Amino acid sequence: MTKTIGIADTMFARVDMFKTAKKAIDDSTEIIKIERYTVPGVKDLPVACKKLFEEYNCDICLALGMPGDKPIDKTCVHEASQGLINVQLMTGKHILEVFVHLDEGKSEKELFKITTNRTYDHTLNAIALLKSKTALSKNAGKGIRQGHENAGAID
Amino acid sequence: MTKTIGIADTMFARVDMFKTAKKAIDDSTEIIKIERYTVPGVKDLPVACKKLFEEYNCDICLALGMPGDKPIDKTCVHEASQGLINVQLMTGKHILEVFVHLDEGKSEKELFKITTNRTYDHTLNAIALLKSKTALSKNAGKGIRQGHENAGAID
Amino acid sequence: MTKTIGIADTMFARVDMFKTAKKAIDDSTEIIKIERYTVPGVKDLPVACKKLFEEYNCDICLALGMPGDKPIDKTCVHEASQGLINVQLMTGKHILEVFVHLDEGKSEKELFKITTNRTYDHTLNAIALLKSKTALSKNAGKGIRQGHENAGAID
Amino acid sequence: MTKTIGIADTMFARVDMFKTAKKAIDDSTEIIKIERYTVPGVKDLPVACKKLFEEYNCDICLALGMPGDKPIDKTCVHEASQGLINVQLMTGKHILEVFVHLDEGKSEKELFKITTNRTYDHTLNAIALLKSKTALSKNAGKGIRQGHENAGAID
Amino acid sequence: MTKTIGIADTMFARVDMFKTAKKAIDDSTEIIKIERYTVPGVKDLPVACKKLFEEYNCDICLALGMPGDKPIDKTCVHEASQGLINVQLMTGKHILEVFVHLDEGKSEKELFKITTNRTYDHTLNAIALLKSKTALSKNAGKGIRQGHENAGAID
Repeated sequence: MTKTIGIADTMFARVDMFKTAKKAIDDSTEIIKIERYTVPGVKDLPVACKKLFEEYNCDICLALGMPGDKPIDKTCVHEASQGLINVQLMTGKHILEVFVHLDEGKSEKELFKITTNRTYDHTLNAIALLKSKTALSKNAGKGIRQGHENAGAID
Repeated sequence: MTKTIGIADTMFARVDMFKTAKKAIDDSTEIIKIERYTVPGVKDLPVACKKLFEEYNCDICLALGMPGDKPIDKTCVHEASQGLINVQLMTGKHILEVFVHLDEGKSEKELFKITTNRTYDHTLNAIALLKSKTALSKNAGKGIRQGHENAGAID
Repeated sequence: MTKTIGIADTMFARVDMFKTAKKAIDDSTEIIKIERYTVPGVKDLPVACKKLFEEYNCDICLALGMPGDKPIDKTCVHEASQGLINVQLMTGKHILEVFVHLDEGKSEKELFKITTNRTYDHTLNAIALLKSKTALSKNAGKGIRQGHENAGAID
Repeated sequence: MTKTIGIADTMFARVDMFKTAKKAIDDSTEIIKIERYTVPGVKDLPVACKKLFEEYNCDICLALGMPGDKPIDKTCVHEASQGLINVQLMTGKHILEVFVHLDEGKSEKELFKITTNRTYDHTLNAIALLKSKTALSKNAGKGIRQGHENAGAID
Repeated sequence: MTKTIGIADTMFARVDMFKTAKKAIDDSTEIIKIERYTVPGVKDLPVACKKLFEEYNCDICLALGMPGDKPIDKTCVHEASQGLINVQLMTGKHILEVFVHLDEGKSEKELFKITTNRTYDHTLNAIALLKSKTALSKNAGKGIRQGHENAGAID
């Protein structure tokens, strides 16, 4: 049966993260339906994902956001993350949180690159998780990073 | 069917935020019913919103508040925000949190302006979310800010 | 029908806050039943309030406490506050948190005064909330403070 | 009917807190059954208490632990405390948290004394709470501390 | 009846923690079935464990992870830990959190050793908890540490 990926994104973000997630899905050989939900900011993502699961029958969600660089923003993203975990526990389904902090890149160019890479990589992770609980096991303990260089394994 | 927006506000706030929210609704061409709920402070907003959803059949809520500038106030607003997210997850409905910190403006005049703008903008967001999950998609990734100048998109 | 106010207080507090809450109720012209529940400290208040609602049919609760002035106490009161909000969301009923931090007053005399005023004022708020969801609306956005001087409205 | 006190303790703690809790129960004139549950550390206490309530029919629980003195330990104990409050709200039963931080005493001797006193006092509080919701009311607002000297009342 | 241990691990970790957990189970004389679930990072562990309990009938879980050393990582692991406690409370089953912070060792060699020891020790703890609620009581209050030297008991 065709699987559905819910993609929740925000107006606050400064990069069109949805476009990259959609590209990653299109690039894959999978037949996947997309349901999009756009909200103002990261704190609105948890309920958007809950609705994507319950009202739009999504099998997994991507929560895309770019929290700000002020202390208040750090608190907001913490609240958003807690909410996203709670939605997962209420629904028994994964939400991959793809958050890029606005102070994570040294320039707009770097920020754009991190955002695009992380969104692309996590979309592939979502597709893998739809397949089986061990689809990612071959990469376990390998120090994999999305959006930055991998840290690598310690043997 | 007529939609209902719940508006929860506080005595602690220093600006009449309800008035601005009501104006934004009146200015819109939508037929919308308003249910108001006034509580002492931001920590009382979560249960007020839950009651607006469950006892007054609201379709979406605005939680209006102006947390103080002391460390204890920062903790209070964090607790309030967590509660507001939890209400959303329990009810499957959006609450747009419209909080303006008392130390966010440099003067009372600026504080008033931020408060009015943010309340007005988020009321419009609430009206959009009542329409469809992609009503705001045209603004996704555009660095939209409510109450401050937009940050803009990075392409 | 006679309404019931649950009052949860602690042994940790240094002021008999229950006495003030009871006085405010007695001073009002309302016929209100009181159920009291005393626990060791603020972290025990959430379940006490839950029991007041569920086992003693209270319509609203006051959670009275005086958290300490050490970092560990700040964490404790944060946990208590989160719990109190959760109880409200589980029961759909208000709990007015009346907390006075032991470092909030410069002297024992001032601390006593803040505690008494805040407890009295919030008890009146509880009585108002029992009446209707807009009983406090006339004071919305007025910068009302309980236990300290009001901050006032910005027009 | 015989009441049951659940006692959850940890391997991480450096003092045998269970022994003191058992002594306080034995010293009392009450007929009380004890169910013990030992877990690795404080973060394992919440589910242990939940199981004590649900699988072993305990009427109240003591959660005994000695969190470490590093920043990570402060976070752990915060998480444990939140969990313990959540268990209370899920079950409608009290858990008295008896935590002694490893940096709370200036010497091992003082730490041992604080631990023993706090455990003993809170065990008596648990026995009181089993009797009635006002069994502790005579001590409300008296600045009672467990394990340290009482702060006293402000009149 | 054969017991099942769920083991959730991450791609973010830099050590193959699953291998050590499996070895500890193999070294024991117990007949235990293993269900593995691999996710990107620690924040994905809570729902993985929930699924291990509900979809794969696990009796207990190990949540294996190696959070990073930046402030954002500390927040992530806090959120993960809260989620893991919530899963335990929702399911009434233990999850032993085996987290090793990337800044916990002074060298990669030391980090590897801490990780291996902690994973091995907590796997044995999980096996003990499957037996009875007092299987670990002989070690209560002994200052036991997993991955570091024991702190020892204070008598």
